[in-house]
Amino acid sequence: MQTMLKQRCQPAVGKQAKAVPAVAPKVGRARNVVVAQAAPAAAKVAAPTISRDEVEKCINAIRFLAIDAINKSKSGHPGMPMGCAPMGYVLWNEVMKYNPKNPDFFNRDRFVLSAGHGSMFQYAMMHLTGYDSVPMDQIKQFRQWGSLTPGHPENFVTPGVEVTTGPLGQGICNAVGLALAEAHLAARFNKPDVKPIVDHYTYCILGDGCMMEGISNEACSLAGHWGLGKLIALYDDNKISIDGHTDISFTEDVAKRYEALGWHVIHVINGNTDVDGLRAAIAQAKAVKDKPTLIKVSTLIGYGSPNKADSHDVHGAPLGPDETAATRKNLHWPYGEFEVPQDVYDVFRSAIKRGADEEANWHKACAEYKAKYPKEWAEFEALTSRKLPENWEKALPSFKPEDKPLATRQHSQTMINALAPVLPGMIGGSADLAPSNLTLMKISGDFQKGSYAERNVRFGVREHAMGAICNGIALHKSGLIPYCATFYIFTDYMRNAMRMSALSEAGVVYVMTHDSIGLGEDGPTHQPIEHLASFRAMPDMLMIRPAGGNETAGAYKVAIANRKRPTTIALSRQNMPNIPNCSVEGVAKGAYVIHDTKAGAKPDVILMGTGSELELATAAAAILEKEGKNVRVVSFPCWELFEEQSPEYKLSVLPADVTARVSVEAATSFGWAKYIGLTGKHVGIDTFGASAPANILYEKFGITVNHVVEAAKAQLKH
Amino acid sequence: MQTMLKQRCQPAVGKQAKAVPAVAPKVGRARNVVVAQAAPAAAKVAAPTISRDEVEKCINAIRFLAIDAINKSKSGHPGMPMGCAPMGYVLWNEVMKYNPKNPDFFNRDRFVLSAGHGSMFQYAMMHLTGYDSVPMDQIKQFRQWGSLTPGHPENFVTPGVEVTTGPLGQGICNAVGLALAEAHLAARFNKPDVKPIVDHYTYCILGDGCMMEGISNEACSLAGHWGLGKLIALYDDNKISIDGHTDISFTEDVAKRYEALGWHVIHVINGNTDVDGLRAAIAQAKAVKDKPTLIKVSTLIGYGSPNKADSHDVHGAPLGPDETAATRKNLHWPYGEFEVPQDVYDVFRSAIKRGADEEANWHKACAEYKAKYPKEWAEFEALTSRKLPENWEKALPSFKPEDKPLATRQHSQTMINALAPVLPGMIGGSADLAPSNLTLMKISGDFQKGSYAERNVRFGVREHAMGAICNGIALHKSGLIPYCATFYIFTDYMRNAMRMSALSEAGVVYVMTHDSIGLGEDGPTHQPIEHLASFRAMPDMLMIRPAGGNETAGAYKVAIANRKRPTTIALSRQNMPNIPNCSVEGVAKGAYVIHDTKAGAKPDVILMGTGSELELATAAAAILEKEGKNVRVVSFPCWELFEEQSPEYKLSVLPADVTARVSVEAATSFGWAKYIGLTGKHVGIDTFGASAPANILYEKFGITVNHVVEAAKAQLKH
Repeated sequence: MQTMLKQRCQPAVGKQAKAVPAVAPKVGRARNVVVAQAAPAAAKVAAPTISRDEVEKCINAIRFLAIDAINKSKSGHPGMPMGCAPMGYVLWNEVMKYNPKNPDFFNRDRFVLSAGHGSMFQYAMMHLTGYDSVPMDQIKQFRQWGSLTPGHPENFVTPGVEVTTGPLGQGICNAVGLALAEAHLAARFNKPDVKPIVDHYTYCILGDGCMMEGISNEACSLAGHWGLGKLIALYDDNKISIDGHTDISFTEDVAKRYEALGWHVIHVINGNTDVDGLRAAIAQAKAVKDKPTLIKVSTLIGYGSPNKADSHDVHGAPLGPDETAATRKNLHWPYGEFEVPQDVYDVFRSAIKRGADEEANWHKACAEYKAKYPKEWAEFEALTSRKLPENWEKALPSFKPEDKPLATRQHSQTMINALAPVLPGMIGGSADLAPSNLTLMKISGDFQKGSYAERNVRFGVREHAMGAICNGIALHKSGLIPYCATFYIFTDYMRNAMRMSALSEAGVVYVMTHDSIGLGEDGPTHQPIEHLASFRAMPDMLMIRPAGGNETAGAYKVAIANRKRPTTIALSRQNMPNIPNCSVEGVAKGAYVIHDTKAGAKPDVILMGTGSELELATAAAAILEKEGKNVRVVSFPCWELFEEQSPEYKLSVLPADVTARVSVEAATSFGWAKYIGLTGKHVGIDTFGASAPANILYEKFGITVNHVVEAAKAQLKH
Repeated sequence: MQTMLKQRCQPAVGKQAKAVPAVAPKVGRARNVVVAQAAPAAAKVAAPTISRDEVEKCINAIRFLAIDAINKSKSGHPGMPMGCAPMGYVLWNEVMKYNPKNPDFFNRDRFVLSAGHGSMFQYAMMHLTGYDSVPMDQIKQFRQWGSLTPGHPENFVTPGVEVTTGPLGQGICNAVGLALAEAHLAARFNKPDVKPIVDHYTYCILGDGCMMEGISNEACSLAGHWGLGKLIALYDDNKISIDGHTDISFTEDVAKRYEALGWHVIHVINGNTDVDGLRAAIAQAKAVKDKPTLIKVSTLIGYGSPNKADSHDVHGAPLGPDETAATRKNLHWPYGEFEVPQDVYDVFRSAIKRGADEEANWHKACAEYKAKYPKEWAEFEALTSRKLPENWEKALPSFKPEDKPLATRQHSQTMINALAPVLPGMIGGSADLAPSNLTLMKISGDFQKGSYAERNVRFGVREHAMGAICNGIALHKSGLIPYCATFYIFTDYMRNAMRMSALSEAGVVYVMTHDSIGLGEDGPTHQPIEHLASFRAMPDMLMIRPAGGNETAGAYKVAIANRKRPTTIALSRQNMPNIPNCSVEGVAKGAYVIHDTKAGAKPDVILMGTGSELELATAAAAILEKEGKNVRVVSFPCWELFEEQSPEYKLSVLPADVTARVSVEAATSFGWAKYIGLTGKHVGIDTFGASAPANILYEKFGITVNHVVEAAKAQLKH
């Protein structure tokens, strides 16, 4: 097959003599690879309707848009778009279903550029196929302030970009999340006797960097486990990374690893010119319905550049004028800078008509579905409207001080199970800590191969992929509300995914239990100290540490309401009382007075606390009041929300003239100076914890009522 | 072979009928597995010198020590020790080289319990074999305050524990680092004509959780690439994790994956009783010298417990009195709580004599080596003394204000290359960003299979494993000084490894370049905002952000000197001047005055800055002084070191009565209130960055001289 293709499809590239050995396996690791074969009869791929020369021209147009834009911006990564241009041509012109004029067309195939540094590849494809977000002037503004074409693809900037990529490995995990969302919704809503209303593929291009990152192995192990057959990943196997040839650090057999992960693996040996091979591979991938497919596409990075191809020089720096001229000559490209021949536009912009037809067909299918299944349609429409059901928050229970002391992780379980029935979009689970995180929805079974309609997801011990998969689920934009859970300490394993939630406006709910030394015997490897501070410092992350039942309800109310901002909820292992005046409304304000001086007297001292330590503040207040002090107690579950309140409100809670202030939280003092000032005192822990029962730890580390009382008294002496 | 073993080695377990099907592969993923075979003639394993019954008794002693200790502490994980006890017996009694009476015996085999929750397994082995750190009273104090037997193995608490584990996957990566250290030192020092002075194996037990974590795939891909033949990992394949059977989330073919990673893979089908199979597998592992070996050992979690074995009930909770009694009966264990029969001690404590002999032999080998290779011996002795060479810090260059402005990443390159010749222990590299991080030592080649003596390590795009491998290198305790590098933002991928450096007293140097929006066009996915704050909040991590050449020298001086505390150095992509009075000594104090008012006048305002923004502070000071203000400028490279200074020094830098304070740093304001107070002003960025040239970003986000001047003036109005 390969031989035949080579005869039919000679590349218009002078460097082929060099190119061929360069794509041949150098390190003997291609032995186990299945080579792409002619598509089986069952699989359908749109036949190419244009000549080989025209195809070549279209492919080169992609390459030169990338080259020119990167030269102009004096910054960027031309190597990937030059090597992957044939994949771009096949995917956008022959394979993918999308509507350039409506990037939000629900039933579109999702595309993820996991190798996000190759962003000009995606912008070139979007420009050529007619997305309004990427006109030529935006191509020319690549990587400039305020442009729609930033250095890495950003979904919150450029309509048509599904997810934000750049940190390697995140994108393929997002793709797993997108494919999970499709599988889930298809299983929930499609009916055997009408056309499916949820039916799309998820495509992803990833490179050597993504492959080396552990996060991709985590997510791809899950994708294989789940058998996500409509996930098709194209691995740009160019054997070059920033340090040079991958021989120096990456000699594993990737194809075999993916087979071990339960994937269907295909190898396209010459991804530079073998367009038919790419077509056949994608057809084969679609034919295998019970496994995700990895298409290993061997390419030359910077294909076409006579002096820089197949080297890391072309990875992350502009070609520059001389090499660009040489590449133009080498690829027989007579066109000027940013010049796209009309016949290339004519080919690619056929996508506009095709996309409109696809969307019209989908609307027709929806109409048929609605007629036959009005109830299900109403559910589908409600969900995908992405509006929260009316009065959903009324499902949240409330608590009285006399209610039983419980751990907030138990309250969290109550909230999840209160919300699951009224929020049909809720889907999620834990990284193998469900019995500890208490995150199972009792009304649902497990999302598994064969039960995609279920909503409890078993992520295994894979925190980083869990977060990134949830980002993909959220950014499927179908009304799903992903949540995920582990011990709070293990946010350290998934921090970049959480940051990407915040950056890319994915309203993931992070349910983080065992939030302090209150975890006890497991010891310092498992005890968060700096984590509250580290997330309070993160932009656009809501970090909530509730005290008791009402504040846990309030935390969920905030988390669910914020569909474009992630929320991390820190929850205790240990019990705490339901303190009077703690409220859902209070959480929404971030900080609020739960106990105040009599008759509005000016406080002598303000005690602030969060979560499991709030009770220490209230107990200390009682003692101090017996000694005649005027004490205010402030519950402080969410710093970000407090900062968003009016200056008047903030001053009403923390009057500037009350400088005697004590904060108590079983965590670092770091950051608290913002509220307690230079002279305030934090009762907490600035060292690592230790292994012992929780009550012993609180005592040994001095996080006690007495210490709060003493700190307050010391403040009052100032 | 397996059949034969079963005939010879009937387990004394009533539940075997159930046990056998439970360890048989349930999900068809054992097809590619190589079954352990008789040891080839070349491989030597100590023959068992005691009867089968005695072996069984020794193994059960391990199980019951774990059961009893966990019952007493009412907390812990009995399942793993019960399942892995046979591995413990074989490793500690027949395979490993160690000296219980000198846990620091240099040439010992290293053991890592990556499944750290099974800590009682390790404590049981250490107690039985006679480590002074784990007498019976410490076994009885398991997980109690101040004990030497904390919930997870902690190297800084318990002599004989090599590394701290618990966060899953870290341990196997540490083991890769330990094996790397051995391979490196062996290649550097051993001579063909004398006995090797560096010659040990690294053993690791890891479980399903470690296997699911991406970090383990990263490190094991490197171990395979490097061909670390003396790394032997035993995979406790018990098919149970906290959520239940691994069928629900982990159905990949692990053995095949490890083959793909370049490992030699062996399967011991019955790890519960097949001691001969374990012996043979380890012998085979040792015989394969050019690949690390994974021995997949299929076990029953909680083996011996009639009602809880093979279930997650036995994973993380005490057996309790009833089930313990039933297990005693089932395993025919007539002994009382914490009772170890003398003959069991007799067997295991033979390790004391064996260890002393091993150490004596090693000293003899060293003496021969010293006689023949006095120069090399002196080098070896100097290195492994773990004392820094005298005057090493004099290699650090100094800079004058008129010296060329450079990026601190360039200065960092200068420091690394200044130190590499005088610090023969320096070893490290980058996660595929060497040309950007500028971390190559020019005097060295690459550490690769065939060139283990070299010191530049190519980690590939595997940040998390990189950090954990460096922890292993540091905790080899042979004088190696590991450093590693990536873009600062990608600390988010490796945060737990960095925290483990801090917790476990591994003095790793983290070289983190591109430390702010000054990175420019790559955009917000690549621009740190909250990272300085997040590491300043982390206990025992030195976070340094130097300004110019002298402070970069100072940062390295601190980092190298702190051999028990990790240092993260944040370095710029962009150039900055060498500001007058910036000094090595200043860095050591954390913060210091670099520019002050004339004749000791009280400052009207204090401007503080770090790294690339310090020049904004000095420029602003010049403008304010022209307007007649008294201005002090404080360079603030390291908060932790400043906090360690005397109260007097701190007040001398930041006098309490000067409340007009401005900080400038291209990062979040979070945390700065500690130094600028409630009324101070931070010039920085509290949102995500953007994609544009760096100078544009500084202007758009308002991090400019003018903004510092304005902020100072606003302060002066108060």
